[in-house]
Amino acid sequence: MSDIEEILKELRQFNADRDWDQFHNGKDLAIGLSVEASELLEAFLWKQPEDASLDKIKEELADVLNYAFQMADKYGFDIKQVLLEKLRKNAEKYPVEKAKGSAKKYNEL
Amino acid sequence: MSDIEEILKELRQFNADRDWDQFHNGKDLAIGLSVEASELLEAFLWKQPEDASLDKIKEELADVLNYAFQMADKYGFDIKQVLLEKLRKNAEKYPVEKAKGSAKKYNEL
Amino acid sequence: MSDIEEILKELRQFNADRDWDQFHNGKDLAIGLSVEASELLEAFLWKQPEDASLDKIKEELADVLNYAFQMADKYGFDIKQVLLEKLRKNAEKYPVEKAKGSAKKYNEL
Amino acid sequence: MSDIEEILKELRQFNADRDWDQFHNGKDLAIGLSVEASELLEAFLWKQPEDASLDKIKEELADVLNYAFQMADKYGFDIKQVLLEKLRKNAEKYPVEKAKGSAKKYNEL
Repeated sequence: MSDIEEILKELRQFNADRDWDQFHNGKDLAIGLSVEASELLEAFLWKQPEDASLDKIKEELADVLNYAFQMADKYGFDIKQVLLEKLRKNAEKYPVEKAKGSAKKYNEL
Repeated sequence: MSDIEEILKELRQFNADRDWDQFHNGKDLAIGLSVEASELLEAFLWKQPEDASLDKIKEELADVLNYAFQMADKYGFDIKQVLLEKLRKNAEKYPVEKAKGSAKKYNEL
Repeated sequence: MSDIEEILKELRQFNADRDWDQFHNGKDLAIGLSVEASELLEAFLWKQPEDASLDKIKEELADVLNYAFQMADKYGFDIKQVLLEKLRKNAEKYPVEKAKGSAKKYNEL
Repeated sequence: MSDIEEILKELRQFNADRDWDQFHNGKDLAIGLSVEASELLEAFLWKQPEDASLDKIKEELADVLNYAFQMADKYGFDIKQVLLEKLRKNAEKYPVEKAKGSAKKYNEL
């Protein structure tokens, strides 16, 4: 079993044990993910990047990944496929010759 | 090679080719992740969950996963380990006997 | 003195008393605002709109307004002017004949 | 008429003309506000605070204020009262003697 499949199996069991799938519509999952993304962001508020607490980053990033994996599973998206496909699209939006060493958005390249 | 390791390898190559690691401090990665989480959320704005565009959800979820994987890699977090550890902590915050069928937050159980 | 000017005067005094202006660069103010917007959003997570706590909504909305007013003041934007200007632009993007009764985004009208 | 009341009057007219109040439940307004807060945040992504575009900041801050004013109006909150009340609470959480010159959160003072 792949790592990703192992994680999904545990997530599904966790939700099934608690009968939580009834609450997990896409809209609320997206809200939950956004809320956790902001909790992760809060680790850096008023701080230099290197001064943020590693424990807090790990804690909140885990919550973000939790929601992201659940959303992918709910919609039947293959996480690896979806990520690699996006990288391919990004490679076209940000060709190496134009994008190398630049932080510009694709429509400003 | 595990799925996760395969994805990380491609992400690292993508960033190395474009000499982008120089921009990837934790604070900006967290901002990027939050921005993408909101673009995912926007798919559901004014809509019933079932009316959101699947293509848009897949597109934006891929961007969220992209940032989340990059952040984990930057800090050297093992994605599977971090996720399963969080599930264990959540199992204690939300014991099945108390949390089953309830949408209450752990401090309201 | 207008209401808005009265609020800004209190906000400026609050920050000056605590010598906090040194921290208030636009990037961190924007992060703070986003974090509070998510705390407001969390009031509705897993809930029907009408079941969200009014106290929590008022609490978090106050924090959002606090940051929004501070950002406007930092950049010298006239809050009323900026809002009414935006309404005028929105009126062009969403002409009554096309937009009435519709939740569609302007590029889908 | 106060500045705030003038703004609210225009916002109400804008929505009434377009028959949009039917969509404006608190949950979707909170989502909209969060989405705009992220668009504001995006102005600073990968950038030093002083390099963000002033036009973009003004544009997105106007959208945030738009949603914040609409939410306050929907729940019948007096914007000035709510803001000044929050400042008073914050003054207790962050007394000048402890908080002056410090970026620490209140529970770390």
